[in-house]
Amino acid sequence: MSVWEEKCIISPSLICLDMCNLESQIRILEQSGIQVLHVDILDGHFSPSMPLGLDTVRQLRQKTDMFFDCHVMVENQDFFVDELLDIGVQQIVFHAETQPHIDGMINRIHAKGVKAGIALKPSTPLSTVEYVLDKCDSVLLMLINPGYAFLKGEKQVAYADRKIRQLRQMINERGLDTKIELDGRISPDNIRTYGKDLADVFVTGTTCLDRNDLSGSFARLEQLRREIL
Amino acid sequence: MSVWEEKCIISPSLICLDMCNLESQIRILEQSGIQVLHVDILDGHFSPSMPLGLDTVRQLRQKTDMFFDCHVMVENQDFFVDELLDIGVQQIVFHAETQPHIDGMINRIHAKGVKAGIALKPSTPLSTVEYVLDKCDSVLLMLINPGYAFLKGEKQVAYADRKIRQLRQMINERGLDTKIELDGRISPDNIRTYGKDLADVFVTGTTCLDRNDLSGSFARLEQLRREIL
Amino acid sequence: MSVWEEKCIISPSLICLDMCNLESQIRILEQSGIQVLHVDILDGHFSPSMPLGLDTVRQLRQKTDMFFDCHVMVENQDFFVDELLDIGVQQIVFHAETQPHIDGMINRIHAKGVKAGIALKPSTPLSTVEYVLDKCDSVLLMLINPGYAFLKGEKQVAYADRKIRQLRQMINERGLDTKIELDGRISPDNIRTYGKDLADVFVTGTTCLDRNDLSGSFARLEQLRREIL
Amino acid sequence: MSVWEEKCIISPSLICLDMCNLESQIRILEQSGIQVLHVDILDGHFSPSMPLGLDTVRQLRQKTDMFFDCHVMVENQDFFVDELLDIGVQQIVFHAETQPHIDGMINRIHAKGVKAGIALKPSTPLSTVEYVLDKCDSVLLMLINPGYAFLKGEKQVAYADRKIRQLRQMINERGLDTKIELDGRISPDNIRTYGKDLADVFVTGTTCLDRNDLSGSFARLEQLRREIL
Amino acid sequence: MSVWEEKCIISPSLICLDMCNLESQIRILEQSGIQVLHVDILDGHFSPSMPLGLDTVRQLRQKTDMFFDCHVMVENQDFFVDELLDIGVQQIVFHAETQPHIDGMINRIHAKGVKAGIALKPSTPLSTVEYVLDKCDSVLLMLINPGYAFLKGEKQVAYADRKIRQLRQMINERGLDTKIELDGRISPDNIRTYGKDLADVFVTGTTCLDRNDLSGSFARLEQLRREIL
Amino acid sequence: MSVWEEKCIISPSLICLDMCNLESQIRILEQSGIQVLHVDILDGHFSPSMPLGLDTVRQLRQKTDMFFDCHVMVENQDFFVDELLDIGVQQIVFHAETQPHIDGMINRIHAKGVKAGIALKPSTPLSTVEYVLDKCDSVLLMLINPGYAFLKGEKQVAYADRKIRQLRQMINERGLDTKIELDGRISPDNIRTYGKDLADVFVTGTTCLDRNDLSGSFARLEQLRREIL
Repeated sequence: MSVWEEKCIISPSLICLDMCNLESQIRILEQSGIQVLHVDILDGHFSPSMPLGLDTVRQLRQKTDMFFDCHVMVENQDFFVDELLDIGVQQIVFHAETQPHIDGMINRIHAKGVKAGIALKPSTPLSTVEYVLDKCDSVLLMLINPGYAFLKGEKQVAYADRKIRQLRQMINERGLDTKIELDGRISPDNIRTYGKDLADVFVTGTTCLDRNDLSGSFARLEQLRREIL
Repeated sequence: MSVWEEKCIISPSLICLDMCNLESQIRILEQSGIQVLHVDILDGHFSPSMPLGLDTVRQLRQKTDMFFDCHVMVENQDFFVDELLDIGVQQIVFHAETQPHIDGMINRIHAKGVKAGIALKPSTPLSTVEYVLDKCDSVLLMLINPGYAFLKGEKQVAYADRKIRQLRQMINERGLDTKIELDGRISPDNIRTYGKDLADVFVTGTTCLDRNDLSGSFARLEQLRREIL
Repeated sequence: MSVWEEKCIISPSLICLDMCNLESQIRILEQSGIQVLHVDILDGHFSPSMPLGLDTVRQLRQKTDMFFDCHVMVENQDFFVDELLDIGVQQIVFHAETQPHIDGMINRIHAKGVKAGIALKPSTPLSTVEYVLDKCDSVLLMLINPGYAFLKGEKQVAYADRKIRQLRQMINERGLDTKIELDGRISPDNIRTYGKDLADVFVTGTTCLDRNDLSGSFARLEQLRREIL
Repeated sequence: MSVWEEKCIISPSLICLDMCNLESQIRILEQSGIQVLHVDILDGHFSPSMPLGLDTVRQLRQKTDMFFDCHVMVENQDFFVDELLDIGVQQIVFHAETQPHIDGMINRIHAKGVKAGIALKPSTPLSTVEYVLDKCDSVLLMLINPGYAFLKGEKQVAYADRKIRQLRQMINERGLDTKIELDGRISPDNIRTYGKDLADVFVTGTTCLDRNDLSGSFARLEQLRREIL
Repeated sequence: MSVWEEKCIISPSLICLDMCNLESQIRILEQSGIQVLHVDILDGHFSPSMPLGLDTVRQLRQKTDMFFDCHVMVENQDFFVDELLDIGVQQIVFHAETQPHIDGMINRIHAKGVKAGIALKPSTPLSTVEYVLDKCDSVLLMLINPGYAFLKGEKQVAYADRKIRQLRQMINERGLDTKIELDGRISPDNIRTYGKDLADVFVTGTTCLDRNDLSGSFARLEQLRREIL
Repeated sequence: MSVWEEKCIISPSLICLDMCNLESQIRILEQSGIQVLHVDILDGHFSPSMPLGLDTVRQLRQKTDMFFDCHVMVENQDFFVDELLDIGVQQIVFHAETQPHIDGMINRIHAKGVKAGIALKPSTPLSTVEYVLDKCDSVLLMLINPGYAFLKGEKQVAYADRKIRQLRQMINERGLDTKIELDGRISPDNIRTYGKDLADVFVTGTTCLDRNDLSGSFARLEQLRREIL
């Protein structure tokens, strides 16, 4: 079974790691059984944050064959998506709010044999994916305002629960296997609540991970997974 | 004497280093006597390149007290300059072509006690700095089209020599100590030609540096400096 | 009871007053019992209109402690919202259509202890506020195309009634006390129809107010309020 | 009965004709009984395509009194709509996704006595026209991503059928006579499926038309129309 | 002799007046012999400032026949220039840096019988007006960064003197009567230095004017004018 | 000798021809000995004009092997230049004012074996081409504001003569064979004045050409050429 078909995937965010020692950090992830790396691509225009660069991703690609799940939070996505396709990633999740040709961008990514998903900001209604849901490999729900995590100490939006359940209902009613990814201050409680049958991928950052004890953090999350599955 | 007042400064570009092992790379630089690190900030909008992120720079800042000479190649510079000022860098060199308030931006950087410079694309005329030259700590001349280095294998522009000499003349005629920085495919020959009394800072990348033998590369450049000074 | 909790609030628009004698105009409003001033901020980019400036609002703030309900019709809202927060206003209602981080902007305003609302152009569907309605202090429905009032003599949109009732239903079903504000050619008939239990704030302009007899105009509107409440 | 009130209108796209001999091409259309010409206006910014120019349309207007149904796929629609109104066309269908004042633009077109419609990209939800549907003369559904037809060989979106039927239901429930126009790789099968009572106008291009035998192509489509009506 | 042909014109800036009592303020100006009012139009996009609105200017126009010298500091000048032409002003000075058709905009203003000038930010080189100087009624030199006056307490740029003298030389060499206007922290010393034969119009703000004693301020400036002329 | 090396080239503008009968129009040009066709590409954003489309150029390319000299007046030139390179044209002249990477764009065009030139609006100073002049195949000087020809009846700018002579001097001083192209209301008088040794290519439109007698018009221009050469 491929990593992507597992239930309750724990996907740590690259931007929470020690950027000055990425190679050794990746080894810890691999040894901890982590198979999906969440790669946040922000350009400083979409929201006030540009945490890492494309060359970092490109060089990291040479070091590991983990599943790179790239979350594109940029204006003018064409350049960034093309670079990621060239680097060789496994999935590209782009924001609907800054993509003028949503349907076309999915086609463009799929044409390269790469999975394609759509990300939605907290307030964006689910009607946005009304017609394209069937061709999405994933829908990523932002539970905080993207790019503001470190700057403003924002909390998860109060309506997260309602939105997650409504999306799950849409997917189930259509009999799809589109993944639901949750991103933004993901806590062990979130995983406990949604991990069994409501969401599929949990993007984990500083709320779940202790940078000084990554191995221990992942062991605790794996323990949690076993309890709920 | 401060590092910045030395002649013929060799300033390697951060984006030529091994991004997955930055901490150990920085140690090699320090041991090689390198004191000025060139930090390229591109947002993928100014030109098709976004090599590294601000969080990378922020974390690197904790590891070393080298002089960070930041070259800002972005649209809407406000966010990026503010972040760099917050990170704590020694100089910010911004492109005149995407700064609507050139004079004001110099003031804004100086107000934080940070050096300020102006960068010019190859074709941009020197009349651009006619009035603000006196308050610039540096003028950086791009000798290739910024952001295209790795993509297109461009060569240094044929008119580089003329432009360097004209800028040197402007600076000398006014009796200023504004530094001239050269960036783009800088070769040992460039250093030999301009290092004695025409330019002050040489941004070195893959043309000068062998990533597999950084120490040896810097030793050879230091040897070259001694010959010409 | 605070002014904001009253029913059927009459809120005259600042841009309908005599701009060359604002201080005396404000005194008339105060003497007429008007407690909520509608302040339209347009930048000429959102729509072809820039009726008044921020310095006008700032100076007016020194003259009165009326409730300033600011309606932000601009592109790139950050600067304008920051200025209004600095001036010291009671509510900021921003357009969803030009705000890339709707949820985040509400947080940003609330963090300063100021009320936050969302404004919608005539054609914008109510699904836009599906998830953030619960945290809005107000939702303002434009009944004409914003910024075109004086230029084109537009009439209220034919579907205004349907939209008002659907929003009222959403709010009631969730048990919220979010205010509904109506803006655009508001007439006494509008107040009579919606003032009792469908809408809360009526932005009044030249359709309701005679600039040469403001006192009389407000007296007639107060008389109308009494009849329906 | 006016041409526009007929059922199952075949409307060939101007950009499929021989651009170097438009006058003779138009004569063939007229002789084939074609009365509605679909005029695609793209500016190269909305999507990567700028097939024809406004001067071409303006000169063509002098040659024929056919019904020009103009499909505006541009950013900043004001200039293009004003030019088309000046040229003298019968309908302007503009994209909702790039129109900040949807309701106002309909008014602006109607004020000149010209029909106004709204076009939607494949993924755009029908909630976009929730409030303005009643005042639209047409709603045009793109069944492929606009502007990519020739470049990428895209197929009609899989969800086209669902979207067409949902729009038809909205229109019928409200008792409107808004036309449904279908655009993008329209085939004889599409006309057969939707031509009787689901859609009104079929924009035909290379899938239906043989440029070397336009007359024959139109004859076959007319035959098809007769079968289904 | 028309007001515009006088030497050493004192032109107070509208945004330094008491905005809540403009009518009475204008009367003070008129009684003080002031004939040229400097009207700053900023949109909050060109620089972070939107001091006053177009409706304020429009209403003020009804109260006085002073010479309105409008300084347009906006992006996308078309709307603002058209409004000012409609309001009826005597001169429009627009910034070259945000005008893509400099020559055309001068023609457009002149076509309405209104004077046209070009404004330059501090760092903008004079080569910008190399070819259009002959058709400019004025060139306005900003001596501080426009729009930051109140925010940042900036001082006049050190190179102001050099730039003023170079522009005067260009104008004299060509035998033109183009006016030089100086704007930004204009002091009595500036008027003394440049008022006799280097500059023509002095935009005066809080550095020269005491808002609590406008009459006295103007009397002192008039005294100064007499001394130097 | 290639057509491009002739002196005093007469290059009619495509947008002055009968757009509905281009094939026969091109035959007239060819029979008149015209070898260089001026193809204006405007996108309606650079200036208010979008006369013809890329598909028109593409189809025309199949009909003739004339030298297509393409004058690109657009924002975001990348798409348009790529299309023209794909169509197969002989020269691309792009506007410096909307090209952020002037030097790089020349390289990009040259890399395809196509000639590259720079166009300048009337007011743009020649310092713009100070450093890149040596690598330009042509510099095109606009003598009216581009895109406004038909709309506003503008005349050639008064400073045209000075600018043409200064550019000629720059080219001669450097010993270059860069062509000077003149565009905008070109008259027989212009050709007489500049055709011998000041300019190389004359873009001719309605001022020189009678659309009802193209052959006669070209014969008269050829006669004029013979007189001056």
